[in-house]
Amino acid sequence: MAEPLRIALAGLGTVGAGVIRLLETNSELIARRARRPIVVTAISARDRYKPRGVDLSGYAWEDDMVILAERPDVDVVVELVGGSDGPALACARTTFEAGKALVTANKAMIAHHGLELATRAEAAGVSLKFEAAVAGGIPVIKGLREGAAANAFERVYGILNGTCNYILSTMEDTGRDFASVLADAQRLGYAESDPSFDVDGIDAAHKLSILAAIAFGSRIDFGAVEVTGISQLRAADIAQADSLGYVIRLIGMAEPDFSEGACKLFQRVQPHLVPFDHPLAHVDGATNAVVAEGNFSGRLLFQGAGAGDGPTASAVVADLIDIARGEVASPFSVPVSDLETLPAATSGHRRGRAYIRFTVADRPGVLAELTAAMRDAGVSIESLIQKGAPEDGGPDGIGEVLVAMVTHEGPESGVTHAIELLSQSPSLTAPPLVMHILGK
Amino acid sequence: MAEPLRIALAGLGTVGAGVIRLLETNSELIARRARRPIVVTAISARDRYKPRGVDLSGYAWEDDMVILAERPDVDVVVELVGGSDGPALACARTTFEAGKALVTANKAMIAHHGLELATRAEAAGVSLKFEAAVAGGIPVIKGLREGAAANAFERVYGILNGTCNYILSTMEDTGRDFASVLADAQRLGYAESDPSFDVDGIDAAHKLSILAAIAFGSRIDFGAVEVTGISQLRAADIAQADSLGYVIRLIGMAEPDFSEGACKLFQRVQPHLVPFDHPLAHVDGATNAVVAEGNFSGRLLFQGAGAGDGPTASAVVADLIDIARGEVASPFSVPVSDLETLPAATSGHRRGRAYIRFTVADRPGVLAELTAAMRDAGVSIESLIQKGAPEDGGPDGIGEVLVAMVTHEGPESGVTHAIELLSQSPSLTAPPLVMHILGK
Repeated sequence: MAEPLRIALAGLGTVGAGVIRLLETNSELIARRARRPIVVTAISARDRYKPRGVDLSGYAWEDDMVILAERPDVDVVVELVGGSDGPALACARTTFEAGKALVTANKAMIAHHGLELATRAEAAGVSLKFEAAVAGGIPVIKGLREGAAANAFERVYGILNGTCNYILSTMEDTGRDFASVLADAQRLGYAESDPSFDVDGIDAAHKLSILAAIAFGSRIDFGAVEVTGISQLRAADIAQADSLGYVIRLIGMAEPDFSEGACKLFQRVQPHLVPFDHPLAHVDGATNAVVAEGNFSGRLLFQGAGAGDGPTASAVVADLIDIARGEVASPFSVPVSDLETLPAATSGHRRGRAYIRFTVADRPGVLAELTAAMRDAGVSIESLIQKGAPEDGGPDGIGEVLVAMVTHEGPESGVTHAIELLSQSPSLTAPPLVMHILGK
Repeated sequence: MAEPLRIALAGLGTVGAGVIRLLETNSELIARRARRPIVVTAISARDRYKPRGVDLSGYAWEDDMVILAERPDVDVVVELVGGSDGPALACARTTFEAGKALVTANKAMIAHHGLELATRAEAAGVSLKFEAAVAGGIPVIKGLREGAAANAFERVYGILNGTCNYILSTMEDTGRDFASVLADAQRLGYAESDPSFDVDGIDAAHKLSILAAIAFGSRIDFGAVEVTGISQLRAADIAQADSLGYVIRLIGMAEPDFSEGACKLFQRVQPHLVPFDHPLAHVDGATNAVVAEGNFSGRLLFQGAGAGDGPTASAVVADLIDIARGEVASPFSVPVSDLETLPAATSGHRRGRAYIRFTVADRPGVLAELTAAMRDAGVSIESLIQKGAPEDGGPDGIGEVLVAMVTHEGPESGVTHAIELLSQSPSLTAPPLVMHILGK
C-alpha cells in the first residue's frame, strides 16, 4: 500500500473531534477505499486542554495554525476553525503557499474568499475542497460538479440551513410562535446563542452562493444574494399556509435569467410556501435538501443531515479520500479564470404566485385599501383570509388583524409594486410579509 | 485545450440518441468542465437506417461492435446495447483488450459479469464506469463510491425500478388493479410488452446487487438476492395499506448481517409497506430513490428520474467527463482482488413488522385457523382486517375473503414459519402475500 496521506487538523470543535473519531473508527475501510491510510499527524486549536472525548496525545501540537500548515510532515490541511477571515484565512493561504491541499468546512470563508483561494490552489497545482461547507454530510458539491456535470442547470434550490428548518418544522408541529421555538432550539443546541447568522438567512446565502458558482460556472457573488430570514414568521402564517396546502420552508434558490438577452444570475434566500406534494415539503427537522434541475437529468434531489459532527466529518473525509486517490480538479468545476462574471438579476423577470400577509389595524375600510392596492398594481388575488389575532394585541389598543392573500400567477414585480403602494399606509401595523410559492 | 476525448457509441436506441443529443446540446459547457471536448467519432447499431431524430452522417459507421471497439480513432466505448451477454459482452471485452475505457448503462451485464469486466479494466489500467446502470440519472454510484466513501454502511435501500413504481403509485391514485394498470403502462410505453423483467423484480435485483457490491466492498452476488415482484398485489392491498398509514413500494435492500459473527450480506427485493412519513413514501411515478445509511453521514437520500433517454444520457456523459478529467479508479471502489466474498444471509436474523394478506374461502373457522397458525409460530398480531372480495369471485363458487394482518415487531422467521404451517391448508385460495414494513 502507498504512503499514508498525512493530515493536519486546524480547529478541534465538535467537527474536528468528529473527523478524528471517523478516521479512527473507519480507518481500515478508508485505507482500502483511498488505497492508502489517512492519518492525522498534527493538530492545532485555540485551547489545547479542553476535554473533547478524543485522545490527542498521538498528534503533534502547534499553537499557531500557520506553522501547522508549514509542517513538513503534513500533506493536507483540514481547516475547521470557521470565520471568513482571521486565522482560518491565514491558515488557508499558508497551506497553498506551502504547496499543500486544503479541505475546509468553512462556508463563510469560501463565500467571501473562495475565488482567491481557488486561484492559489490552482496555481500551486493542489486541491481545495469544501464538500462539508454546503449541506453538511450530503455530497451535493460532488453531485453538481461531477454527478450532474453533463447538464446545463435550469435551477438549483433547496433547504440549506438546518436551524431554520428545525424551527419551521417545529412551529408547524406545535403551533407555537417563532420566538418560543427559537428559545427552545437554543436550549437544545440547535441554534446558537446569537442566532442571527442562521435565522436571518446569511448562512443559507453563503451556501447558495457556493452552489450557484458551481452550477452556473460563475464567479461567487455572495453580495448579490437577496436575503430574507424567518424571524418575521408567525404561527398564524404557518397555520394559513397549512390550510391552503403548503408548508413554509426557507429556500435558497439560484437560476439564470436570460430575459434581457445576456445571462444574469438570480440568487435569493427567502421563506417560501412549498406545496404538500413537493419533495421539499417532507424535509423536516435539521435535515437539508438540494434540488438541481438539469436540462437532461431532470430534477435531482439530494437529502440528508445538514449539520452535526458525524455528517460534517463524513463530508470532510470524503474530500480527503478524493485527494488520497490522486484527484486534483478545479475547485469550482472549471478553472477560476474560466468562471463567468454574471450580473445580478433582480426578481423583476420572475413570474409566480405569492403569499402576502398584512398585519393591519382592525377598522373599517382597511380591506378595501389593501385590495385596491393589489388591483392598482395589477395583482390578481386567488384567495384571501382575514383573521383577528387577539393574542398579538395591537400597538395602540386597536385590535390587530391578519390578512393573508395568495395571488394568481403573475410577475413578482406586481407584488413588489403593490407593497410599495401600501408602504405609507397608516393601516399597516407592521411591514407586510411576502413569501413566494414554490412551483412543482 | 487538450485533445478531444473520442467516443464510440455501441447501440443507438433512445439512450444512444439521447447521448448524441446531449453531447451536441451541451458541447460547450462539457468541454469547459471536462477540460477537453468530448466527441463521438464512430457508431454501431443493429439497424443503420432506422429513423432516430439525430443526424448520424458525421460519424463513422461499423456494422460490428467488436471492430468498433478496436478502431484507432476511439478512446472510450459507450455500450448501450443491453443484454447481459452476446454483443454487449463481446464489445466490452474487446474494449479492454484494446486498452480503452468503457462506459455502460447495462445493469444486467454488470450484475452478471461486472467482476470479470472490472478485473479486465484494472489489468488494462483503464476505466469501467456504469453510473447509468443504477437509478438512471441519479448519481448514486458516485454518491456511494465517493461522496459517502468515508462511511461504513449500515443499510442501502431504495426504489430501483421506475416501471414498478409507476404501476404502484398509479394503483394507489386510481384504486385500479395491477393487471389493468400494467396494460395502460404498456400502452403508454412505461412498461415493456414482456414486463416480467421489471414487475418480477429482476431489474431491481440487478441494480441492488451492484449497489451492494460498492457499499459493502463485496463481490457482486446477484444470485443471492431474494426477489419478489409486484404482480401478486391487488387493489385491496393498496387500500388496506393506506388505511393503516402506508404506501406500497418495491424496495431493494442490502445490509450486512453480523448475527452469527462473521459478516454475511442480506439482499432482498420485495414490495414493502412504507410509512407515510418516510421519504420514500413520496417517491411517485417513474422516479427512483436510494437511501444510504452511513455510520457517520446518517441517512442520505438520492432521488431523481430512474429512466428515460435524457436522465440516462446525463449519467453516461457524467462518466465520460470523469474519464476526460483523467480519473482512473477501481470500478467497485476497491480493486476486485480486495472485494470480499460475503456469504448470503437469510432473512432469519431480521426483526421487523410485516403485512400478511391471505385470500381464503369464506367459510366458518378459517379465521381461527389463521390466527392459530400465527400463535403457534409465535407471531403476535397488531391488527387484522377481514374483508369480503366479491369482485374477485372464488375458485369454486365459494366466496373469497381477504384477511390482512399486520404483525407486531418480531423475527421474520416467525412469519415464515406461520406461512409454512398454513401451506397445506385447503382454506387458502392463493398463496399468502407477505410484505415487510419499512422502519423509519
